[in-house]
Amino acid sequence: MSVMSPRAQPRLRSDFPRFCTVPTRWGDNDVYGHVNNAVYYAYFDTVINQHLIASGALDIAQGEVIGLVVQTGCHYFAPLHYPDPVEVGLTAAEVGRTSVRYEVGLFAPGAELSAAWGHFVHVYVDRTHRKPTAVTEALRRALLPLQRPITTNHSSAFPSPSSATSAPCTP
Amino acid sequence: MSVMSPRAQPRLRSDFPRFCTVPTRWGDNDVYGHVNNAVYYAYFDTVINQHLIASGALDIAQGEVIGLVVQTGCHYFAPLHYPDPVEVGLTAAEVGRTSVRYEVGLFAPGAELSAAWGHFVHVYVDRTHRKPTAVTEALRRALLPLQRPITTNHSSAFPSPSSATSAPCTP
Amino acid sequence: MSVMSPRAQPRLRSDFPRFCTVPTRWGDNDVYGHVNNAVYYAYFDTVINQHLIASGALDIAQGEVIGLVVQTGCHYFAPLHYPDPVEVGLTAAEVGRTSVRYEVGLFAPGAELSAAWGHFVHVYVDRTHRKPTAVTEALRRALLPLQRPITTNHSSAFPSPSSATSAPCTP
Amino acid sequence: MSVMSPRAQPRLRSDFPRFCTVPTRWGDNDVYGHVNNAVYYAYFDTVINQHLIASGALDIAQGEVIGLVVQTGCHYFAPLHYPDPVEVGLTAAEVGRTSVRYEVGLFAPGAELSAAWGHFVHVYVDRTHRKPTAVTEALRRALLPLQRPITTNHSSAFPSPSSATSAPCTP
Repeated sequence: MSVMSPRAQPRLRSDFPRFCTVPTRWGDNDVYGHVNNAVYYAYFDTVINQHLIASGALDIAQGEVIGLVVQTGCHYFAPLHYPDPVEVGLTAAEVGRTSVRYEVGLFAPGAELSAAWGHFVHVYVDRTHRKPTAVTEALRRALLPLQRPITTNHSSAFPSPSSATSAPCTP
Repeated sequence: MSVMSPRAQPRLRSDFPRFCTVPTRWGDNDVYGHVNNAVYYAYFDTVINQHLIASGALDIAQGEVIGLVVQTGCHYFAPLHYPDPVEVGLTAAEVGRTSVRYEVGLFAPGAELSAAWGHFVHVYVDRTHRKPTAVTEALRRALLPLQRPITTNHSSAFPSPSSATSAPCTP
Repeated sequence: MSVMSPRAQPRLRSDFPRFCTVPTRWGDNDVYGHVNNAVYYAYFDTVINQHLIASGALDIAQGEVIGLVVQTGCHYFAPLHYPDPVEVGLTAAEVGRTSVRYEVGLFAPGAELSAAWGHFVHVYVDRTHRKPTAVTEALRRALLPLQRPITTNHSSAFPSPSSATSAPCTP
Repeated sequence: MSVMSPRAQPRLRSDFPRFCTVPTRWGDNDVYGHVNNAVYYAYFDTVINQHLIASGALDIAQGEVIGLVVQTGCHYFAPLHYPDPVEVGLTAAEVGRTSVRYEVGLFAPGAELSAAWGHFVHVYVDRTHRKPTAVTEALRRALLPLQRPITTNHSSAFPSPSSATSAPCTP
C-alpha cells in the first residue's frame, strides 16, 4: 500500500517504560464491532494527562501552565474491542523547550505487539494568554520515568517485555 | 423547585448489591469542569452490559438475544470530575417477562451518598427481527446477584455501607 | 411491560414549537447499528444550549449565570441511524423560579411521531459559587418562543404538524 | 519546536475540492473551552463516510466492502469552539489499489486558513474476512470529485478560495 509509505510497524511492549490499563466502554465500539479510530485519541489524552496530574505537574482547574495539543497521529494494526480493557504504554519520546512528544502504545491484554501506536505533541502555554512557555521543573520531573528511549533493537539491557505490568491509571 | 416534583433524593451505597469502578476520561469533563450529564449514561451502558457479558448472559457479536434500551433517566446531586474514578453501584430493580429495570448509583470514591443515580430499562429482543423475547434463563441467573431490593429504610439487616467494595469492571 | 408503567407514548411534531436539525455522526451508531441511547442526551444538551446562546441568554465562556443539569430522562420508541439527520423539537414545559424543564422530541426526517422524547431540567446558578439564582430576564425572553404548552389533545387551534420546519441549529 | 520537525503549515480553503458544514456539539468542547483534539477525528470519520454513503459507494449495514482505518493524523493551528459550526474540506490525496489517503481541512466559518488539517487512510476490505480488496468501481467514481491535487503553490488556475461553498453534509 504505497499510500502509507513507509508502512509503520507495530511497537513492542518493551518500547514503553510505563503502562496502565484503560477499560473500554460500550460506546467505544462502532458499527463494525471494534473500537472506533477516534476513540484511540481519547485513550491517549486520558493517560497522558492522568500521568501529569498524578505527578503533580498539571492542575487542570487552577494551574498557570496547561498543555495544548498541536499534533497527533496513530497507526492501527489490529482491532480492539469492548468489553476488553486496553493496556496503554507511555513514553516521552522528545522533550523540547516548550513542548513534549509523547508516544503511546495500545495493547490487547498480555499482547507483546501493539494493536496500535501513536504520537501526541503537547505545547505548554500559560492559561491566560495561551503563549508557549518553558517546560516547568515539575513537568521535567514528571517526564523522567517516561524517558527510556524508544528502540527497535531490543538488546538484553532492556527488561523482558513481560516485566512491564499494567495497573489502573489512577490519579 | 416545583419543576422537579417530587425532588428525588440521593441513594446510599448500601442500596446497591454490586459495585465496580469506572475510570473517567479527559473528555468526560465539559467546559464547566465536571463530567457532562450525557456521559453518565455511557457509564450506565458500560457497567450493565459488562455485567451481562461477564455473566455469560450477553454475546454482543453473536448472541441471538440483545438488549434494547427503551427508557433511561438520571438525577444529579453533586458533580463528578476527571481524573477521579467513579464507583458504580448496580441493581436489577424490576425483572419483567421481557424487560429489566436496572438502577445505577454513581459515587465519588468512598462517598456514602450517590453523586447521581438513574434507571435504565432494557427490553430483550431477538437480534434479527428485534421483537421482544422472554428473559432467558442465563439472564435470570445473571440478575440474581443484582436483586437485593432497593430500600430507603436501612435496617441492621443490611451490611454496613462500607462493606460493598469496588473493583475494576472486568469482562 | 410492567417495568415501564405507565408506558409513555411518542410525541407529535405539533407538540414542539421550535425545531432544528442535528446531523448524526459516524460514532453515534453503536455495534447494533443505531444511535446509542447516551448520544440522545448529547443532542438534548446541544440544542438547548444552542438556543440559549443564540438568544443571548447564555455565554458559556464569560456569563455569570450558567445552567446545571439536575435531572434528565428519555423514552425511546424507534431507532435513529447515522447518516440520517435528526429533527429536534424543543419546548420549555415548565419555567420555575430558578429552574426550567425542557422537553425535547427527536424525529426521523419528516416523521410525525417522535422516535424518542425526553426531558432535561436546568437549574441556573452563579458561575462562581454554583448556588441557584433566579431565572434572568434575558433567559425568560429566550424561553418565550419555546412555551407553547405540550398537549396530547391536538385541536384545530394548533398548526398542522407539518407547519413546523427544521433548519440547521445555528448559533 | 524541534519535536515537530518539519513544522506543518495550515492549508488553504482552495486546497480542498469539496466542503460541507459540521455543527459542533456541547460536549465537543473540553475543560479548556475549545473542541477536544480527539473530536477532530470524529469529524473526519463522519464527513468521509458521509461522502461515500451519499455517492452510493458504501453501505454500512449490508455492503460487502467496508473501509477500515489504518492510519490517521492531525495538525492543529487554532482552536475551534462550540457553538460555531466547522467547515470541513475533503480531498482524496492518493488512491491506491486497496486503499485511499484522504486529507481533511477544518475551517472556522469563512476562514481562508485551516484551523487544523489531517489525513485518514482507509484500506478497503471484505466485510466477512476483513482482507484487503481492490477499490471498487463505485468507490473510484465517488472519489473523482475529491481528486483535485493538494497544492501549496496556488496559481491562478485554481478557483479563488471563496468559490468553495459549504453546505450541510447530507446523506
